[in-house]
Amino acid sequence: MRALERLFNPKSIAVVGASPDESKAGYQMLYSLKDFPGRLYPINPKADNILGFKAYPTLKAVGQPVDLVVLTIPAAACINVLKEAGGIGAGSALIISGGFAETGGDVGQKMQKKILSECQKYQIRLLGPNTAGFVNPHAKVVPNFNPWTADISAGHIGLVSQSGAMCLTLASMIHAQNLGVSLATGIGNGADVNVEDVVEYLADDHNTRVIILYLEGVKNGRRLYEVIARTTEKKPVLVLAMGKGDIADFAASHTGNLIGSYRIKKTALRQAGAVLVESSDDLIDAANLLSRVRLKAKENPGVGLLTGQAGPGMVIADYLRSRDVLLPELHPYTVEKIKVALPPITFIRNPVDTSRPSGTFPYVLTAMSLDPSIDVLAVFALCEPAVIDPVVLFRDAVKIKQPVIFGTAGIKEEVADTVKALSKLNLATFTSPDRVAKAVHALVEDSKASYRRTRVTEQQRPLPVIAPLLSNPDETEVKDILDRIGISTPIRSLCRGHMDALDAFRKMNKPVVAKILHPSIRHKTEVGGVILGIDSENALKEALDKIDSILPGNGKMYLVEEMAGNGLEIIIGGTNDPSFGPAVMVGLGGTAAEALDDVTMRMAPLSLSEVRDMIFELRGKALFEGWRGSRPLDINCLAETIVLVGQLMIDHPEIKEMDLNPVRIYEKGISALDALIVVKDKVEGIVQ
Amino acid sequence: MRALERLFNPKSIAVVGASPDESKAGYQMLYSLKDFPGRLYPINPKADNILGFKAYPTLKAVGQPVDLVVLTIPAAACINVLKEAGGIGAGSALIISGGFAETGGDVGQKMQKKILSECQKYQIRLLGPNTAGFVNPHAKVVPNFNPWTADISAGHIGLVSQSGAMCLTLASMIHAQNLGVSLATGIGNGADVNVEDVVEYLADDHNTRVIILYLEGVKNGRRLYEVIARTTEKKPVLVLAMGKGDIADFAASHTGNLIGSYRIKKTALRQAGAVLVESSDDLIDAANLLSRVRLKAKENPGVGLLTGQAGPGMVIADYLRSRDVLLPELHPYTVEKIKVALPPITFIRNPVDTSRPSGTFPYVLTAMSLDPSIDVLAVFALCEPAVIDPVVLFRDAVKIKQPVIFGTAGIKEEVADTVKALSKLNLATFTSPDRVAKAVHALVEDSKASYRRTRVTEQQRPLPVIAPLLSNPDETEVKDILDRIGISTPIRSLCRGHMDALDAFRKMNKPVVAKILHPSIRHKTEVGGVILGIDSENALKEALDKIDSILPGNGKMYLVEEMAGNGLEIIIGGTNDPSFGPAVMVGLGGTAAEALDDVTMRMAPLSLSEVRDMIFELRGKALFEGWRGSRPLDINCLAETIVLVGQLMIDHPEIKEMDLNPVRIYEKGISALDALIVVKDKVEGIVQ
Repeated sequence: MRALERLFNPKSIAVVGASPDESKAGYQMLYSLKDFPGRLYPINPKADNILGFKAYPTLKAVGQPVDLVVLTIPAAACINVLKEAGGIGAGSALIISGGFAETGGDVGQKMQKKILSECQKYQIRLLGPNTAGFVNPHAKVVPNFNPWTADISAGHIGLVSQSGAMCLTLASMIHAQNLGVSLATGIGNGADVNVEDVVEYLADDHNTRVIILYLEGVKNGRRLYEVIARTTEKKPVLVLAMGKGDIADFAASHTGNLIGSYRIKKTALRQAGAVLVESSDDLIDAANLLSRVRLKAKENPGVGLLTGQAGPGMVIADYLRSRDVLLPELHPYTVEKIKVALPPITFIRNPVDTSRPSGTFPYVLTAMSLDPSIDVLAVFALCEPAVIDPVVLFRDAVKIKQPVIFGTAGIKEEVADTVKALSKLNLATFTSPDRVAKAVHALVEDSKASYRRTRVTEQQRPLPVIAPLLSNPDETEVKDILDRIGISTPIRSLCRGHMDALDAFRKMNKPVVAKILHPSIRHKTEVGGVILGIDSENALKEALDKIDSILPGNGKMYLVEEMAGNGLEIIIGGTNDPSFGPAVMVGLGGTAAEALDDVTMRMAPLSLSEVRDMIFELRGKALFEGWRGSRPLDINCLAETIVLVGQLMIDHPEIKEMDLNPVRIYEKGISALDALIVVKDKVEGIVQ
Repeated sequence: MRALERLFNPKSIAVVGASPDESKAGYQMLYSLKDFPGRLYPINPKADNILGFKAYPTLKAVGQPVDLVVLTIPAAACINVLKEAGGIGAGSALIISGGFAETGGDVGQKMQKKILSECQKYQIRLLGPNTAGFVNPHAKVVPNFNPWTADISAGHIGLVSQSGAMCLTLASMIHAQNLGVSLATGIGNGADVNVEDVVEYLADDHNTRVIILYLEGVKNGRRLYEVIARTTEKKPVLVLAMGKGDIADFAASHTGNLIGSYRIKKTALRQAGAVLVESSDDLIDAANLLSRVRLKAKENPGVGLLTGQAGPGMVIADYLRSRDVLLPELHPYTVEKIKVALPPITFIRNPVDTSRPSGTFPYVLTAMSLDPSIDVLAVFALCEPAVIDPVVLFRDAVKIKQPVIFGTAGIKEEVADTVKALSKLNLATFTSPDRVAKAVHALVEDSKASYRRTRVTEQQRPLPVIAPLLSNPDETEVKDILDRIGISTPIRSLCRGHMDALDAFRKMNKPVVAKILHPSIRHKTEVGGVILGIDSENALKEALDKIDSILPGNGKMYLVEEMAGNGLEIIIGGTNDPSFGPAVMVGLGGTAAEALDDVTMRMAPLSLSEVRDMIFELRGKALFEGWRGSRPLDINCLAETIVLVGQLMIDHPEIKEMDLNPVRIYEKGISALDALIVVKDKVEGIVQ
């Protein structure tokens, strides 16, 4: 559990390649570490003493175990040093040099394999290669060759970045806000220690109150998903994730990871309870707030907005309302209480606008805080200490049980003083209305995500055992599987030859549909292999002749099915992402909806409540709820079907992709009209 | 044209209600104005001298015309002062007090009418009532009762806000960035001088290089649209517009204006060439950049991105690419030139990542600037003056012809110094990668908007003259109008009685459709009044009987039409917004698409190019372009139809709303299957 303790919180550090030459990384690294309170060993065969520290010719010469060995030497020299480190019982290592697997070349990959195998042999945890290092200001551990990282303050934000420069950028933005970090680390090429490992470490680190991540491509998305899901039970996780735009080539050249699908990354992170933010600025503001306060898990927490001036309150309310954040109507009793304290024409609903704030401002704030619908208070007031001093206001407002977020604007110096003073009261203050709104939004999203994660979920019923699929099943085989696991399909018959088809036809409700069945044909409609509306024996004959003409040499195999009734068409899909593993999608069917790409996604396995969320996230959700006078559709049955598809994807890791398209949904029940399963190629192996 | 000059750039100011009592607004106002270099007249019958200025008992006692009269007196006292001001030839007035029309009450509205009529009588331009005042730091005119507004620096950002507090908030944010304003003004309740007037004034103000607006509800949206369209020819206009969320009640209580539809506000502002930003922070950053540089009008300007470190470059590239900002591939010649200057594994496409910047950084920047596809350069590098000093870099990069935007992060103090030094070189610098990206995005959006506004548009053909519509026309009348203006409709016959219908049926291509015709029935399908697929005389008889049964007493009027062929269904709508006037919408038809609300909008009249943009903005645009193997549809004909609908809305201001739903679009041509026109109620009058 605490395997990374010797890496991130070492009691002894050796710097291999430490140098008295100020232009060398080996000097800069030692310089950064000069205030380290533990034992610090410069390793350099040609020096007795560097920066006042006794130097040792070799690691072995140190004569005792070292927690962290920092390698500021060329790539090719690393392997021997790691062996030596193993020999003296070192706990961890940090390699600054690039030139390993991230180059994409053979030489680098071979070197990486070698160093990894040494690390595994000696149970050394390795950070890097190709990383700028990390910063743990609480322990004054600053193994980082950017000298200014020593200035970063100790605080409560745990920062993990796949990019060294973004680690520095975000750390500097944190510092600029007078905040601090518990740990800030790049991952480099992530040979051993990766993002998931550090998140797991920070989940139990008592200095860390919020974890923030910068993510590009994710190698083992499934593990990240699972680690974050466990972590958000303990503390909030905020993520800035790349990949909305087309940056795949650049990203691959950077970390060597594939950027992958943004959709599945976003899905997995949100489902695990992380909050995705829109920008690095939003990330720091959200971290500022969430390092101080966290809301309890709640389906839809209520925000009380008190504003000294209408305009900024409008900006905050507009932002929050347009993102489905609840600003509940205040209780009439609260309104009555507030009314007596404000001029007659002010707006007292929620927001409460005091017009120009006066001496009654604290009274109004307290009244709002006593309203049962309010879970968090957002307050904005121009910085006019003569009218209202926020420091006095919030110092005295000790009775307020909810978290408070404050926003202000005014004379630069006065505003800066206010922010600092309030920070000492553990209050996050933002200097624009939008920053208040965005931070509140992140706080609320964290609470909603916790609610979704923690709500009681029904017991999963295990699926009937189905033998692993060794090759792509045909449509009847897929539908048989669906029948067995409990997903409705049309009444059908697998027919060999015309007579067989005619027999089937006679027993069925008309009209029927006839389909070609051949392993080589996946998209039957496109080759004319699906004939609908067959209502006579003649029509059947014609249809079969037409199907025969598509692949003249085939075995005259047909699928004859009763035609399904009209209903809303949807698509249910399953995918086994190379990084994130099994996931399920639902979308509206039909040409227009497909062109509009109205699809939502969840990681499998998933609960009925999650599936319901997924359905209601569709932009076209109104179609399920009784659209323009029609009756509501059977969302429960649809939800159960999606749960089953997810379970099948989990039980059968050999399935690469599933496609039920279309599925018709009725007032009662559903029917999967067509279904496809694609099995992974053998060479791909089975990920799970 | 310069009617507001005496208001915003006065040579003499009188403060009525000036007071020696520091707690009074009349004191604060005079204090704010104490450095005014022109003639300043405190008006107070009880004082000889206030703050060192000779006081006058009345305006009349001043004995000469005054450019601006500031009223810091109760609402009820204003009317007499305005009369007096008129008597001495005052040019403008500013009323701080509230209690006028914005209260929504009768008393306030009556008072407002009275003061307005005095102002009109004497040609006094009035700012307010209910405004905090304005700031013109260039002329040291600071009639504002918030004393700190005197600290706001002179600069090139013209700020107009419907909210006094947002004016102060934005001004303080500008000040915090060490930027300045040319003018910053609230509008108050906008009795006389409104947002449009000030924008028009700033369009010709030589101190103003960029105009920024904070907008809630807009009373005369059409005029705002026209004023902004003229202004953006001269300088950029950036807008923070409220109303995405549900804040209608709060907004109405604030300015007394209806918030209106966000969709039409956004449409009009964008079409006029304004850039809409997402937040107040984005607004200030975009204003910072656009007050220094503006790109030429271009359909799709190319951004060259040079980054010292991969991660921040990734953040910028991801943001821009996901918002359709072009980062063009560099010319192979450029790539070859850059290659020699960078380590082998760096990414040299666009972005160009120098890995760790070195002495070649200026060379690479220059090489990129010489690439023909690059219209603007964005540069990010961590602040490491030892490695690369951006001040030296950009001071020497005088040959660079494109605008440059710089971003950096690092030690707080070093970063602050860099930002200040670069600002003196007229370079906008931002301290996070996202802020760089957002500012570049605004710069590019401004260029694209100018392109759309200025591209050559075809001559509008005038529509045939059609008599004004006095009441709602029925479907045949609407379709006759469509035929006359050149929009295809199905072959049809207006039939009285069964025999008439039978005659029509015999002459038509089968099948036909029969529809009920009655002025009271707008939604024919919902009452069962549309019967499709009639292919025999018997079927027609049955259909007519069915229609007769809907409204037994009606005159047996039917519309019999040939059925249209299959095609993609779309919806074309016209609306005459109470504030913004005539606008046109297009959306995909059919149940799913309507539920997904895939609709785009433009102000009428509009050109074919604008309509094409409008069609390609639809999320489902792929459906027009040959979806899944089908042939492309007749977008030209669709575009012409939309232009005609827009022209009809303009020619007929009595039309409140038009709805062609559905319109079928084919490989060649379109057909409007159903059409509705709703005429304004008489009492509404005609807006235009």
